[in-house]
Amino acid sequence: MIGARARRLEDPVLLRGAGRFAADTANAGELHMRVVRSPIAHGRLVSVDVSAALLVDGVVAAWTHADIEALPAIGFRLTPRPELLPYRQPVLARRFVRYVGEPVAVVFATSAYVAEDAAELVEMDIESLEARVDADLDPVVWVDAEQATWAAGTGEELPEQDSEATSFVEEYGDVDAAFADADDLVAAGTHRIFEMDARIGRHTGVPMECRGLVARYDAAEELLVIDGAAKVPFWNRDAVAAMAGLPPHQVVMRETHVGGGFGPRGELYPEDVLVTLAAMRLRRPIKWIEDRQEHLVATNHSRGQHHRLRALVRVADGWIEALDADFILDQGAYVRTHGATVASLTASMLPGPYVIPNFRATAHVRLTHKTPAGTYRSPGRYEGTFARERLVDKIARELHMDPAELRRTNFIPADQMPYERPIKAMGTHLVHDSGDYPLLLDKVSARFDFAAIRAEVERRRAAGELVGFGFGYFVEKSGIGPFEGARVSVDITGKVTITCGASSVGQGVDTVLAQVVADRLQIPHDTIRVVRGRTDQFEFGRGAFATRLAVMAGSAAANATDALADKAIRVAAHHFKVSPAEVEIDNGAVAVIEDPSRTLTLGEIAALLEPVGAGEMKEDPGLSADGWFRSDHMTYPYGLHAAVVAIDRGTGNLAIERFIVGYDVGRSLNPTLVEGQIAGGVAQGIGGAVYEEFLYGEDGTPQCTTFMDYLVPTVLEVPDVETLVTEDAPSPINPLGVKGAGEGGTTAVAAAIASAVDDALRIPDAIVSVPIRPDLLRSLVKSISVT
Amino acid sequence: MIGARARRLEDPVLLRGAGRFAADTANAGELHMRVVRSPIAHGRLVSVDVSAALLVDGVVAAWTHADIEALPAIGFRLTPRPELLPYRQPVLARRFVRYVGEPVAVVFATSAYVAEDAAELVEMDIESLEARVDADLDPVVWVDAEQATWAAGTGEELPEQDSEATSFVEEYGDVDAAFADADDLVAAGTHRIFEMDARIGRHTGVPMECRGLVARYDAAEELLVIDGAAKVPFWNRDAVAAMAGLPPHQVVMRETHVGGGFGPRGELYPEDVLVTLAAMRLRRPIKWIEDRQEHLVATNHSRGQHHRLRALVRVADGWIEALDADFILDQGAYVRTHGATVASLTASMLPGPYVIPNFRATAHVRLTHKTPAGTYRSPGRYEGTFARERLVDKIARELHMDPAELRRTNFIPADQMPYERPIKAMGTHLVHDSGDYPLLLDKVSARFDFAAIRAEVERRRAAGELVGFGFGYFVEKSGIGPFEGARVSVDITGKVTITCGASSVGQGVDTVLAQVVADRLQIPHDTIRVVRGRTDQFEFGRGAFATRLAVMAGSAAANATDALADKAIRVAAHHFKVSPAEVEIDNGAVAVIEDPSRTLTLGEIAALLEPVGAGEMKEDPGLSADGWFRSDHMTYPYGLHAAVVAIDRGTGNLAIERFIVGYDVGRSLNPTLVEGQIAGGVAQGIGGAVYEEFLYGEDGTPQCTTFMDYLVPTVLEVPDVETLVTEDAPSPINPLGVKGAGEGGTTAVAAAIASAVDDALRIPDAIVSVPIRPDLLRSLVKSISVT
Repeated sequence: MIGARARRLEDPVLLRGAGRFAADTANAGELHMRVVRSPIAHGRLVSVDVSAALLVDGVVAAWTHADIEALPAIGFRLTPRPELLPYRQPVLARRFVRYVGEPVAVVFATSAYVAEDAAELVEMDIESLEARVDADLDPVVWVDAEQATWAAGTGEELPEQDSEATSFVEEYGDVDAAFADADDLVAAGTHRIFEMDARIGRHTGVPMECRGLVARYDAAEELLVIDGAAKVPFWNRDAVAAMAGLPPHQVVMRETHVGGGFGPRGELYPEDVLVTLAAMRLRRPIKWIEDRQEHLVATNHSRGQHHRLRALVRVADGWIEALDADFILDQGAYVRTHGATVASLTASMLPGPYVIPNFRATAHVRLTHKTPAGTYRSPGRYEGTFARERLVDKIARELHMDPAELRRTNFIPADQMPYERPIKAMGTHLVHDSGDYPLLLDKVSARFDFAAIRAEVERRRAAGELVGFGFGYFVEKSGIGPFEGARVSVDITGKVTITCGASSVGQGVDTVLAQVVADRLQIPHDTIRVVRGRTDQFEFGRGAFATRLAVMAGSAAANATDALADKAIRVAAHHFKVSPAEVEIDNGAVAVIEDPSRTLTLGEIAALLEPVGAGEMKEDPGLSADGWFRSDHMTYPYGLHAAVVAIDRGTGNLAIERFIVGYDVGRSLNPTLVEGQIAGGVAQGIGGAVYEEFLYGEDGTPQCTTFMDYLVPTVLEVPDVETLVTEDAPSPINPLGVKGAGEGGTTAVAAAIASAVDDALRIPDAIVSVPIRPDLLRSLVKSISVT
Repeated sequence: MIGARARRLEDPVLLRGAGRFAADTANAGELHMRVVRSPIAHGRLVSVDVSAALLVDGVVAAWTHADIEALPAIGFRLTPRPELLPYRQPVLARRFVRYVGEPVAVVFATSAYVAEDAAELVEMDIESLEARVDADLDPVVWVDAEQATWAAGTGEELPEQDSEATSFVEEYGDVDAAFADADDLVAAGTHRIFEMDARIGRHTGVPMECRGLVARYDAAEELLVIDGAAKVPFWNRDAVAAMAGLPPHQVVMRETHVGGGFGPRGELYPEDVLVTLAAMRLRRPIKWIEDRQEHLVATNHSRGQHHRLRALVRVADGWIEALDADFILDQGAYVRTHGATVASLTASMLPGPYVIPNFRATAHVRLTHKTPAGTYRSPGRYEGTFARERLVDKIARELHMDPAELRRTNFIPADQMPYERPIKAMGTHLVHDSGDYPLLLDKVSARFDFAAIRAEVERRRAAGELVGFGFGYFVEKSGIGPFEGARVSVDITGKVTITCGASSVGQGVDTVLAQVVADRLQIPHDTIRVVRGRTDQFEFGRGAFATRLAVMAGSAAANATDALADKAIRVAAHHFKVSPAEVEIDNGAVAVIEDPSRTLTLGEIAALLEPVGAGEMKEDPGLSADGWFRSDHMTYPYGLHAAVVAIDRGTGNLAIERFIVGYDVGRSLNPTLVEGQIAGGVAQGIGGAVYEEFLYGEDGTPQCTTFMDYLVPTVLEVPDVETLVTEDAPSPINPLGVKGAGEGGTTAVAAAIASAVDDALRIPDAIVSVPIRPDLLRSLVKSISVT
């Protein structure tokens, strides 16, 4: 079953229309929550008056910050640098508003319609202040001492804080020493310095389903039950429990179906805290469903990064001797749960597949009066890959080298794997666990015949078309620890259930876990039921982020199944009065090897393990076993994106005619799912490369609050993605050899398309900023036509 | 904490009005079920027409047997004698109706009101047949061959079956040989034969809350969730799963609060199957709440037994040499889930505390056209104790012996404990595990000064009052196995949770389990949360019946806590780098014995046991441990009931002025709860002794279908119960030494009151039948006045 194109377990229920999304959860007597949001990007909150809203028939409560002032600001889940604490977001605006869409008040009513109408009666008196929308500007004062002290919540009195929340460096080798010699080397003609100034626009994942949460406090059970959890239910369970004053075991987070995750969905937001708190206080079920307009201002944005790169390169072969990078991340108005994750990953993953013996990245996380930013599929790598690969293309062009050859020169050699880069990524030592970067380049070039593509491009160019071909190379990361667990159990009918702490954001985790278990038990994977996203069903879990679950939960499921098989074998051996070595798992049963007519099904073994029988055999009752997988290193898949693009001379429209992805995932648990992940990832990468951008007016007013303004690519804009999934570099650090496939479809899309557009235009560095808008292309086309 | 008068954990939520009973469970979109019941006690079901009901606006479905014909009859949970199979009840009446109230059809509608109105439109064409209401009559044909074959469901063709469903014998010694010599012995004057003909009326437990069940099939989770389970959720889970065609792990039974159990509530009834099946078929939540009138005809009746006893007794000292008993149990129209349990327990427990070297009981289980009967608090013992103690009183009176002395003569001597009686009870060898029967008689006589009571009775009698004193002695049984389990877990805040397979019918099981755990962890019991009655939270459980949970679940909780304490000690020792012997549990923490400043709270230990830390210590993640207790023997508490009664000469009203209970429970986990159990048990015993009886007309029409006809004693009829709970005979077969206290308040009530009434009237064998109605007392009073 491992490696099979097994059908998704998740699909039948969805195809039958029986899926349950957050909005489908209905509780008798529920109240609906509506958030009143700031219409102003920056201002002093003089007063908020909910009295008119409270008079509306059906309104049960309305709160401002005064009603929740005991609540702390929302904490950090990842990369919790302490200097970021003063920038945390209050659950409802406190003294100031800092972005359009910031929650200022909240109304609870017996219907969503009443709640929305009443919310419009909440009076906000806001004194407007100057808004800052450009993160490149020098820092200014951002929060005063009172706010900084409150938001940090450490008990320590803090001074005012400026709008650069943090700046930090990731480095190895000696960049300063390298560049200190650079003038002489450049003068000697052996080396050159190359610079790149690259920008990635502010965009984010916009799932088909907006966010939503439904909470109810069951006073009879003293249990707070929350439906609509996603991504990181255990972390959110603990956070919500602490805020609600409940022990974590008295809070149950339940995943519903998720109409797309992609990073933004499932983090702990102000709305989640409000829903939870209201369920506790009002003792009625509370439902909140985000609408699309809210989503586009309330849910984490991402990307929005400006890179400046400077490289010292040996002229003879294009060897990159040193890279000094500096980048500014536009964090928006607050630092949310991810802390400094995006900046940190940008910095540590920036070298990508290349050796680069001297490296430094300086990150600047800066606040602006925009929606707070967080992680989005391939965070930091999409941005860094764009900047780095643009630089590499530039070096190749200026050195008149084949860009593929330049990359080969700089690749970490396969024989140096595992390759430790002496920096950290997500708190782990960055060790490329395995990989053969040139081999993948060879394989993809051969499979898709890059030479033929180039020839065809030249033929069409000669015929007058603006056609180009380009590619980018990248290293991804996956499988962050520290742990994941799974339980495999079999009931007396033989039904196999996997219960685990994993989460699903639609990626197919149920299917691959079932394949892992099915493989070992020799049963069809689609007879297995997977229970996850229920914090009362499994004790621990870390969640669905950073492409970690195939590695972590997959390995845990494999370990659990091994333990289950051992138990089944012991019991069958006891039953048949033979030694465990004399029986074996055989198509979901255990048979005596020498006499296969002596067989016990797993269900029969489960029946033997009812508590009395189990006691006699000195086994724990039940045919069930837990397995764990722990890891303090990530795994590093890698890949290549290539694009053929055509530009319309009249409209400046950019057509992505072909998109090719080569990706080595170590071991593909299910090629169909890997290809699906890649195709979806490419579509989102195309969005950021060509279409999607959150634009703001000078006063901080968002200009993209509907899908008329915020352009998500449709199936018309996304070509059929051509993929080559390879398994040349199994991971040596997990029992399955697997590396995650969730983000590599996105990582190098902007890099590859920009490279292809440059090629189409034959203008050096034409594209150093994404998205690539038609107006830019029209002016570039015009510049060619003029010359 | 063990033995403390700890406050009930169960009460705060109930006192705050936050309890959730079955009827409080509301699901959005639910349908309400109404059962159409037979108005005729016995008849051929010619046709059932639901078409008019289906036309009612809001009616979604209506079923007759034809709609569910694939469903088998409801199976047996206990004492499943195969000869009873042909008498099982179909879920909806099939070809015949056999009692008034039998489910014939069922209607599902959007409101309970619509459902009830529509149910009245269902047309039943029933051809009346002769009804049988007297179980004493000789058996007749009961089911034809077709019905017998269908109901048995074994695939074997059966012939027609008569109305004596089973007859069986429990015996030891040699009764026939003893009585073969009797004529000679009697003639010689050394022995006499005594006979007793005693009847116990048909009555049952009538909880304040009628039954109810709410089921919903969650298609997204492929999970059938059933709220309102009670008593035996795991058994019902398995039964319902099999009927619904689901693996048991895809059915979740959830207990709600229970407004009284007492035996009838929680067994699997036709309505439960219908609710479940409808949730599956109609894919909407289904709610059914029984009304009182239904309850009194639909829910198991009980008692209804006629005993004939014949004893061979040595004249010199009252030694009972042999007892030959024969009894008829009026089973009603079908044999339900308990199988032959009541008859079996009656037979095996009949000897009570007495040696009786030669014993035989012959049981006859007979069908009548009445509501099927099942178990009710102290099943078989209430009946048997009445018959036996009436006989013992008669022997004492006729031999002019003090009834206490006669009992002492016959008691199993304390020095012969454990005492094996060579018969079986509930499938286990009947071994009185411990006991000092004379000692309890001494203690109760002393504590309540029986001599003074007798003197006072004589004084009042001399003054013309009809006052009497009497008592009865009994042995109870408790703690049936085969197993129970519990999990004790501690979260990072230190909150302790007990998760177990036990069930609550209001008896306070949460409190005593918490006491057991609190005692070992040295923490307040009311900081502990108990999760039970959730089949998805703990894998196995056998339920709340037969007074088993203090013994079984209590011992499991003790074992789990020991395992948890061991784990906490190991972890703390590892943390402090000392040996486990150098640390100890100290007030909910683990401290180094030599240096108590080095302490880890349980919450801190839980944090150390997060999966990564646990892995380093080679421990399973989480501060959690399971414990099991297995047993193949029951424990045998024993007691004495005594009553002072007064009879009103004019009205025949019987006033129970004092009621005294002495009860040895081995070890009292919580004396307040034991006393509460006793007091409640006495009230129900008084009901059966004086007030409650289901009467039927000759055509089988029930005459007691409201509380105007079926008289449950109120607080005015029940005196303050005076109790002496002793711990002279701890059970040697469980780690707590505990015996169950749930039924001993009921067992000898009828025996003691009858004895006191006899004493008041000074008429031999005045009372050989309960309930003791005023009309009988008036006529008896008149007979005294005449003489």
